[in-house]
Amino acid sequence: MSGSLNIGIAGLGTVGNGVVDLLSKNNNHITKRTGKSLIIVGLSAKNKLRKRNININDFIWFDDPCDLAASKEIDVFVELIGGSDGIAKKSVEIALKSGKHVVTANKALIANHGFELSRIAESNSTMLNFEASVAGGIPIIKLLKESLAGNKINKIYGILNGTCNFILTQMEKTGKSFDEVLLEAQKLGYAESDPSFDINGTDTAHKLAVLTAFMMGIPPNFSSIQIEGIESIRSEDITFSKKLGFCIKLLGIVLKKDDGYIQRVHPCMIPLTSSISRIDNVKNAIFVEGNFIGPLVLEGLGAGSGPTASAVVSDLIDISKGNFIPPFGCKLETEHNITEFETERIGPWYIRLEVIDQPGVLAEIAAELKNQSVSIESVLQRGRAPGECVSLIITTHETSEKKFKIAMEKIRNLKALTEPPCMIRIENF
Amino acid sequence: MSGSLNIGIAGLGTVGNGVVDLLSKNNNHITKRTGKSLIIVGLSAKNKLRKRNININDFIWFDDPCDLAASKEIDVFVELIGGSDGIAKKSVEIALKSGKHVVTANKALIANHGFELSRIAESNSTMLNFEASVAGGIPIIKLLKESLAGNKINKIYGILNGTCNFILTQMEKTGKSFDEVLLEAQKLGYAESDPSFDINGTDTAHKLAVLTAFMMGIPPNFSSIQIEGIESIRSEDITFSKKLGFCIKLLGIVLKKDDGYIQRVHPCMIPLTSSISRIDNVKNAIFVEGNFIGPLVLEGLGAGSGPTASAVVSDLIDISKGNFIPPFGCKLETEHNITEFETERIGPWYIRLEVIDQPGVLAEIAAELKNQSVSIESVLQRGRAPGECVSLIITTHETSEKKFKIAMEKIRNLKALTEPPCMIRIENF
Repeated sequence: MSGSLNIGIAGLGTVGNGVVDLLSKNNNHITKRTGKSLIIVGLSAKNKLRKRNININDFIWFDDPCDLAASKEIDVFVELIGGSDGIAKKSVEIALKSGKHVVTANKALIANHGFELSRIAESNSTMLNFEASVAGGIPIIKLLKESLAGNKINKIYGILNGTCNFILTQMEKTGKSFDEVLLEAQKLGYAESDPSFDINGTDTAHKLAVLTAFMMGIPPNFSSIQIEGIESIRSEDITFSKKLGFCIKLLGIVLKKDDGYIQRVHPCMIPLTSSISRIDNVKNAIFVEGNFIGPLVLEGLGAGSGPTASAVVSDLIDISKGNFIPPFGCKLETEHNITEFETERIGPWYIRLEVIDQPGVLAEIAAELKNQSVSIESVLQRGRAPGECVSLIITTHETSEKKFKIAMEKIRNLKALTEPPCMIRIENF
Repeated sequence: MSGSLNIGIAGLGTVGNGVVDLLSKNNNHITKRTGKSLIIVGLSAKNKLRKRNININDFIWFDDPCDLAASKEIDVFVELIGGSDGIAKKSVEIALKSGKHVVTANKALIANHGFELSRIAESNSTMLNFEASVAGGIPIIKLLKESLAGNKINKIYGILNGTCNFILTQMEKTGKSFDEVLLEAQKLGYAESDPSFDINGTDTAHKLAVLTAFMMGIPPNFSSIQIEGIESIRSEDITFSKKLGFCIKLLGIVLKKDDGYIQRVHPCMIPLTSSISRIDNVKNAIFVEGNFIGPLVLEGLGAGSGPTASAVVSDLIDISKGNFIPPFGCKLETEHNITEFETERIGPWYIRLEVIDQPGVLAEIAAELKNQSVSIESVLQRGRAPGECVSLIITTHETSEKKFKIAMEKIRNLKALTEPPCMIRIENF
């Protein structure tokens, strides 16, 4: 790997095509800048015959990505297949074990098997880079791994899923329902035909687990993340939150505690004055706080062909320079002296209850909250329709999550409720 | 330089003390993360006897920073003295020529002599890093040098001076005058006792020249930057701009053109919906646009002990890892095939004229604008006071800078004007 880096790409979807396009359009620029030439040698994808803008005859074709991963023709295997297991994982393992460097955009793979794969990489003295796995074009991983290596990071939170942010933004701007906007997002190509992983928070949690690993110096701990999605948010929640001076965003949050950390993924109400409240549509944004640098916010395109390709290529350039840094920036801490705390959040809440408008309902609800020492900050009832259903909006003062949930369990069972309560954490970010 | 990096620090002001503090508080963390130990060996400052939080007896003291730069005890010389010439430049040259790596936070030095110094570094196979020279803690240089190396960058603009941004923010929030707020900024330590370089735009231009060098792959070209500061901005300009949907920020801007580029430093009116309009007080923010990554915005603390120390230490960590990259990321283009264009901006303007309220004044002004084909978008006259002075606010449609300036030169000489016009470019960022 003197003057050039030979690359094999497995997976030719949006990102794969973007990488081929970038390396074609910017190759002279890259060679001039880095002194290295990035050359695509081999390709692999499910369907060889699919119509593409690429002339695949310019490259060696591999029907099986595992054969490409093992090929002597390449220095780096770029995995853009997706999925936490199966052929993606298998081909990456083969590549690392046969001494190839690996670049991947696969957050599910890294969130679930990043530690195991990093060990294989280290024992084979190969590099495993995954800048594109979190927040698309935003170079957050290199930033945490290198630029902020001198800081103790105590907080990271961010809008890590463009699909959810597009839906929430459009609900706010148009007043349309969740379902209507989701349909539009699918038509525009911003949401998959099966959007579950995006809207239920899993995708955000995959990315959060990777960020936590860098912040804490521990293996990604995806399975323990408490995840809530945006499915139950209605346009009226967005309207009410605006009136209260907030907007609703799906956030991934990790906070450092004395001997451990807390990871959470859920919708939040954040002040309209916050740096990331203005991040709209498919944009992503990440807030990082270090003990010397203070707060740092990055905002950019979190998905799409160009931005993700930019991240993949930045990993390739690092590899071409022999900039050898362990996959997670350091030897990961696997001793059990770093605790993941159960969510012991103390903070205010927004509650929307759909209730039958009849005497005594508010008294019952208030009593259940009082029983758990949950103090009410404001109550708003929209309209009056005796005997019919109305929205009751309550915001609370700071309260323990445990007590709040006990109270809400009781409230959920009140006869006056016509559907389960909508509860959103208010965060003072 | 196997397991440890021996450091000499020259200059123990705000930043120097911050670096000593960071390396004391976070050293275990850094060693754990990077496998390297960063050890301060020698110190130098103007006044040895000055009271400091550091026990200088723990280090070798050098009265002359040039002796520290030449000392065999150190691997890296950290220059935190400041100033584009004199002892700062001399000591850096001595360090590089004697085979030491250099880290500096000195934007004036890099903007004026960065190319010359980078050549000395390259010919001595030493590293010259200057992350802290632009935007304090925001790791923009490493980002341009490495993370975005695969992109052709076509636009960078930013709020690069915290003092100016503090003054403009406070003028907006409190309605106070420029002079009043400047005095407060000085009391708070946000502005120097001689704040000229900050408020007249020189500091912003130093930083812009460094950013342009990375974007274009050319030596910094500070001397050719057209610079305007914020001295002539009144609180009424801020009030009017808000009414028009804008805020006023001092920006450094570099735009790529077909065979060259344009650099500018001046106050701008930018839409209140823009990503960087909300950046308040001493914060900095930088917008970068690449041909694949699209837009990227970074926001953070652009000055101060902690953030700047964080940037200095990130450079030290890169050196400790032997991550050898040329100072400006690549061999700089010194052929004259890259042109710096004269500001040939086509864009709208805001004008405030202080005029005697008498018949015919507006007609005269409008005629001069018409003579140069400058088309008026809106006119606002505040109050009426026949025979006395009133503010006349004009916004124009897009116009050539050349023609606009000819018209304004004529208008400046009209008898009805009681003081020189205030002109601010409106940018649709």
